Amino acid sequence: MECQELLELLLAAARRVDEAIKPLACQYAAVPDPSQQAANAADALAESAALNVLLSADVRVLSEEAGWLGQGSALVVLDPIDGTDNLTRGIPFSGPSIWARTKQGACAAVVTNVFTGHTFWATSGSGAFRDDQRLSVAKSRVPDVMIVGGEYQPLHGLFGRDLGATAHSLCAVAEGRLAGYRTPAHCPDRSWDLMAGLVIAGEAGCILGGIEGDRNPMDDPLSENWVVVAPEMAFARLSSRPL
Amino acid sequence: MECQELLELLLAAARRVDEAIKPLACQYAAVPDPSQQAANAADALAESAALNVLLSADVRVLSEEAGWLGQGSALVVLDPIDGTDNLTRGIPFSGPSIWARTKQGACAAVVTNVFTGHTFWATSGSGAFRDDQRLSVAKSRVPDVMIVGGEYQPLHGLFGRDLGATAHSLCAVAEGRLAGYRTPAHCPDRSWDLMAGLVIAGEAGCILGGIEGDRNPMDDPLSENWVVVAPEMAFARLSSRPL
Repeated sequence: MECQELLELLLAAARRVDEAIKPLACQYAAVPDPSQQAANAADALAESAALNVLLSADVRVLSEEAGWLGQGSALVVLDPIDGTDNLTRGIPFSGPSIWARTKQGACAAVVTNVFTGHTFWATSGSGAFRDDQRLSVAKSRVPDVMIVGGEYQPLHGLFGRDLGATAHSLCAVAEGRLAGYRTPAHCPDRSWDLMAGLVIAGEAGCILGGIEGDRNPMDDPLSENWVVVAPEMAFARLSSRPL
Repeated sequence: MECQELLELLLAAARRVDEAIKPLACQYAAVPDPSQQAANAADALAESAALNVLLSADVRVLSEEAGWLGQGSALVVLDPIDGTDNLTRGIPFSGPSIWARTKQGACAAVVTNVFTGHTFWATSGSGAFRDDQRLSVAKSRVPDVMIVGGEYQPLHGLFGRDLGATAHSLCAVAEGRLAGYRTPAHCPDRSWDLMAGLVIAGEAGCILGGIEGDRNPMDDPLSENWVVVAPEMAFARLSSRPL
């Protein structure tokens, strides 16, 4: 499969997930349900919706809940809902995160937010977008007050916003809402949390770094990862500070 | 002034603030502006809108930006925008937080979210509401996964969500979205951050406690405070854990 074809596949899968979980987002925005059953039911519904689309194509899928599926040539990593605990609580950072790589190594990524209806997407070398708007952090300066996703001890104008959803935090960095993202020390990111958001943030012009070296999470898709992602001007400051 | 009259005053002031900053919320939801100028301009606009309403009444006002104003008998504490950094970044937890106390000691509280349009309000002994819906955490159980506002090290099913806005976090506790709130160690809450949210969470049935004893923030309105706020079942667990 070509990269553009893969992108279309991911967009179709994400749309199907959004259609499936949109009623839940409306319900939980009105009345939250913090039970584990609500989270499990939402994850199962979303995964089934995504896999129905993805497994019709020539792909091999690693899904957060179901593990490895399919035998195709392109590789897909699926988080059916990034931020399930946000969904069931009506905290508006939640939706599918899907990454794919062609046999030739080009990547496509899609993250959607079921609360806002926004679609974040990118393909290797062709830029990152929110809906039809190009995202770029290239000209961003370090703000006086840096609000950073993930985990931070506030210090010298640096404050954390723990939004509880890695892919959505990385998209917020790509949009310039957050000055950067750093994986919380006690909550390592797995490939399904990271891959789509990394492509989108990277294509928006962010520097991507590993806190422990520059290992690619896809070298071992089940590994635990700690990353720092930020525009160039902020990256040095964020990656040099201990948690 | 009677408590109900004070409530009407706070609602009018909050509405005026929302009208003033709604265009900014729309603008920054589309394109964030993390500059200090944007935050300062929003705060000034909101404070002016609120004071225009409040100072027409028989009140004395403590405002986050302007300090003490007026000579009236009822006391008002105003945060023109709780979560200004969220407003300028389009992170949907932002809006005015206003508390008042009659000469007789009854309290009224109003918090509005300019992004969602919701109004949270309460008066002493008469319950807490989101718009026209009564809020109650009385029957809530401790969920398997506790998502807590403020600052937490994740441990044993306990995770933090730092939303960067105390009043809005306390309202989320009153709604049952968050299992509790605890002031981040490095970001003490001041009276204007706390008072309205404390009344709303308290009237919704939460236990209110100080991390360092049970001092009332209004004993010294300029003091720094660290609080724990949660439904009864969760309170012991949250207040016993060191940060």
